[in-house]
Amino acid sequence: MNTEPVKVFVPAHVTGFFSIHRAGDPVATGSRGAGITLTDGVTVSVAEAQQTTVLLDGKPVSIDAVDRVVQTFGETARIVVETDVPLGAGFGVSGAIALGTAMGLNAVYQANYTENQLARIAHIADVEAGTGLGDVVAQLRGGVPIRRAAGGPETGTVDAIAARGQVEYLCRGALSTADILAEEPPAINAAGETALDHLLDRPTMPHLMEASRRFGRETELVPDALASIIVDVQASGGEAAMAMLGRTVFALDDGLTAAGYDPEICAVDVAGMRLV
Amino acid sequence: MNTEPVKVFVPAHVTGFFSIHRAGDPVATGSRGAGITLTDGVTVSVAEAQQTTVLLDGKPVSIDAVDRVVQTFGETARIVVETDVPLGAGFGVSGAIALGTAMGLNAVYQANYTENQLARIAHIADVEAGTGLGDVVAQLRGGVPIRRAAGGPETGTVDAIAARGQVEYLCRGALSTADILAEEPPAINAAGETALDHLLDRPTMPHLMEASRRFGRETELVPDALASIIVDVQASGGEAAMAMLGRTVFALDDGLTAAGYDPEICAVDVAGMRLV
Repeated sequence: MNTEPVKVFVPAHVTGFFSIHRAGDPVATGSRGAGITLTDGVTVSVAEAQQTTVLLDGKPVSIDAVDRVVQTFGETARIVVETDVPLGAGFGVSGAIALGTAMGLNAVYQANYTENQLARIAHIADVEAGTGLGDVVAQLRGGVPIRRAAGGPETGTVDAIAARGQVEYLCRGALSTADILAEEPPAINAAGETALDHLLDRPTMPHLMEASRRFGRETELVPDALASIIVDVQASGGEAAMAMLGRTVFALDDGLTAAGYDPEICAVDVAGMRLV
Repeated sequence: MNTEPVKVFVPAHVTGFFSIHRAGDPVATGSRGAGITLTDGVTVSVAEAQQTTVLLDGKPVSIDAVDRVVQTFGETARIVVETDVPLGAGFGVSGAIALGTAMGLNAVYQANYTENQLARIAHIADVEAGTGLGDVVAQLRGGVPIRRAAGGPETGTVDAIAARGQVEYLCRGALSTADILAEEPPAINAAGETALDHLLDRPTMPHLMEASRRFGRETELVPDALASIIVDVQASGGEAAMAMLGRTVFALDDGLTAAGYDPEICAVDVAGMRLV
């Protein structure tokens, strides 16, 4: 038995805005929108084992999207996840762990999938679990992904804003993506499409933040407690928005620090998913 | 005037095999094939200037693909390139400098192109200069790119082998890509398509090297001096092939060192083009 674990890093992904595109096939289902991948993320270690266990920061957990990836491979493994960012707070953690697990299982069991095929497996798992619609393809790419066409790697088209820099964030708790996505507020799609058009007219970091704030206002998805933090950052001359969907504010450069908050500090991730 | 230069790193890209696909539109023209991007590459610094100059390792040069990128922007700039790998030796240096220049000009002049749009500009420039057909899209992605469909970011489809590791290489001089591509030996396309089918059956690093060697034999593009180095590496249990198109042998892990050579040592690049 190959007991040496394979380690994979997958960046967190904060979504600024999105629109939902459902199709009969889960691989063609997904979202259009834009966000930022972060140097903070998850590290997934995968090793052969007689039965499958998933540990998140030392505690046994059951994450639907991850279970689905393991079932697709038809193997058993010990999956140990360390995360820099909380689950359920708008960082695409379920997609990140699903993608890291797929990459790890592929290496451990020499399954010979390509990177796009691994992203396909993780994307389908995240969609079917109801926990994400576009994080996986963004996390494969890294940088500041713009999802121009929805879906997994075959149907999805990912572009990116050509910029890098520091990112700060502040978490105020969790929201259930699955509940909100199941409800599918009608304003989301109209606001998401408008935001994407706006960003593509001028694909820069400040415009990403402006389009994200407008999306938040039009969908009324931003809790008052987060809206006031965003206003504080803007009042200090910074750029901030809410991570969709979580009780998290993210800001460019030192936006939160300059407004007197004590945020987590990281940067735009440049590489996307990678073996470490 | 903004005199602070913007620095961009673009990985070198060694091609193992390829087939040529010409279309009326240069953006749809390109190649299918596979190769490895390297942690060795080029660093391009771009700064505003009254007239355009290109310095390569301190010496003024004229690189057609780079001149074309500059013309597309309609700006002038001082472009200073430091390279870890030689020009004309099969590392996709012209494409790398073209892509780095596009990214740098975009940042310096706030041209607001996306990453895919910058890769499109560099791809067209490399194709029209006759110096490359698929390096730019590979260098945008990083890792071990498989070009499943030819062309720039709109028409091209890039996947990747899900693997990383050390890479060694040994240069024995230059070949003119433009001359060989213009001549277009008829065996190239048949051998390139066969090699890609072979790799996609089992997309692993050893199969990439095996498919690349077979491509070299079938196209008779491998000079005897390089063929004997490749045989030496294989005799020591390693995996090596020729970089298409240059007088360069590349090997996985410590393949060249183990065979008694004194190669350059680097690794698979994980990030693709990036601001530094």
